[in-house]
Amino acid sequence: MERKKVAIIGVGLIGGSLAIRLHERKISSRLIGVDVNPDHLEKAMEMELVDEVLPMSEAIAAAEVVVLAIPVDKLVTMLPSIMDQINNQIVIDLGSTKAQLINVIKDHPKRGRYVATHPMWGTEYSGPQAAVRGAYENKAVIICNPQDSDEDALIWTKEMYKKIGMHLLEMEAGAHDLHAAYVSHISHITSFALANTVLEKEKEDKAIFEMASAGFESTVRLAKSNPAMWVPIFMQNKINVLDVLTEHIAQLTRFKESIEKDDTQSLQTLISDANKIRRILK
Amino acid sequence: MERKKVAIIGVGLIGGSLAIRLHERKISSRLIGVDVNPDHLEKAMEMELVDEVLPMSEAIAAAEVVVLAIPVDKLVTMLPSIMDQINNQIVIDLGSTKAQLINVIKDHPKRGRYVATHPMWGTEYSGPQAAVRGAYENKAVIICNPQDSDEDALIWTKEMYKKIGMHLLEMEAGAHDLHAAYVSHISHITSFALANTVLEKEKEDKAIFEMASAGFESTVRLAKSNPAMWVPIFMQNKINVLDVLTEHIAQLTRFKESIEKDDTQSLQTLISDANKIRRILK
Repeated sequence: MERKKVAIIGVGLIGGSLAIRLHERKISSRLIGVDVNPDHLEKAMEMELVDEVLPMSEAIAAAEVVVLAIPVDKLVTMLPSIMDQINNQIVIDLGSTKAQLINVIKDHPKRGRYVATHPMWGTEYSGPQAAVRGAYENKAVIICNPQDSDEDALIWTKEMYKKIGMHLLEMEAGAHDLHAAYVSHISHITSFALANTVLEKEKEDKAIFEMASAGFESTVRLAKSNPAMWVPIFMQNKINVLDVLTEHIAQLTRFKESIEKDDTQSLQTLISDANKIRRILK
Repeated sequence: MERKKVAIIGVGLIGGSLAIRLHERKISSRLIGVDVNPDHLEKAMEMELVDEVLPMSEAIAAAEVVVLAIPVDKLVTMLPSIMDQINNQIVIDLGSTKAQLINVIKDHPKRGRYVATHPMWGTEYSGPQAAVRGAYENKAVIICNPQDSDEDALIWTKEMYKKIGMHLLEMEAGAHDLHAAYVSHISHITSFALANTVLEKEKEDKAIFEMASAGFESTVRLAKSNPAMWVPIFMQNKINVLDVLTEHIAQLTRFKESIEKDDTQSLQTLISDANKIRRILK
């Protein structure tokens, strides 16, 4: 594939880790970093995540590909004006919600230059210092509404993701947001809520974490995730997130009622049903 | 420390993994396996987890130390009769709940020979084939009500745990069960309930798991855990588990209400509060 000059808007965990991969796999001919946070830009240069930093309009003008790795509320407000500034550049976003974003530029004259994507990779850390080597490898990336992107833009984007080791899925934006609520957004809410449950208890009982083990860490580690990223995701995917959260509370209530009633048979069934997740998780 | 002949009652994940460590660290002079499941015994011999298998009464008679690695409902019914059968053996259990078990033998004439422990290690798998090398290392072990155990029994038990790399904590049984509800039992319930939430959705939408990523796996992996182990834990620790489950549902409801009301400020606060778990998890 043809190496291109890539501007990355947002050089945090997601954008910074992608920059490392684009360089490593010789996908970019040059990497330009853009960020509202000057500390992030300084760190990105120091870590050699990007070759240079530029103000956004200059970066867009200088680039052949513009990658947006910023929170989803910022995407919705900034994508239309970025689309106004491009000529023939490819614009790719990496956001975790898709319907609202796609809707906001659906009638834009340059719509075809934009490819909506969601690579299913992240960690609970944030900022350029959280960027890691080997990110994205062997994970899924969702391309949303591919029929609305120009063929050349779509092909280059798919090649890029294949070359960094991702497997491609195509989905309509609405289906994407529903699925993301079930297999990503709810996991973060349960983890945040579980952290708060235990931290509340710690206020009266300082020794509560002495016994914390690997199982606890596994279910709570996502609670370290950044609110600047997650508040807008929950708000943009509000309807789906509320549906799955309501269902999850109902499932927890079934456990509660079974235990209250000493209904060990029902508890046994609930757990055996949950064990069927073995079919999905290796 | 003096090597002893150890009988392990229950050669599954917990007992089998301990057997490997006792042998590796030269703590046992001989390992005798006992299990109600003949397949487990065969597998334990084939994997060389134990040196021989015997019926329970013979194993107890032949051993100097009896380790109980069986579900907590079985512990409560079997511990009194095991205590009836011993002379001067040390009896150690590894169960995840402690108050009910300690209560059931509190007036036993041999009470001093028993040491109540809970090593904070496990995986979501079960059976002797799930036994692994290096288990227990760098984890906490709780010794409950140590004042009720004979000094020699307590010293040998502590030495054993230190030698397999665990750090010791001492706690009253009631405090143990409360803490375990917060940092272990609730994690399993949320994970089971989350698995059921998503598996229910899969019945109408087969593609729901296509996008599942590391975050999802992390919060759901405990849902593979064995009901024969977990139903009795939840029932024996009913009061604490219901308290923490009620609190956890209340915390989830706060997320739900914030999202419903578009209260981004409150959502931001809930997530920032949850981020304080960074203080606990490295």
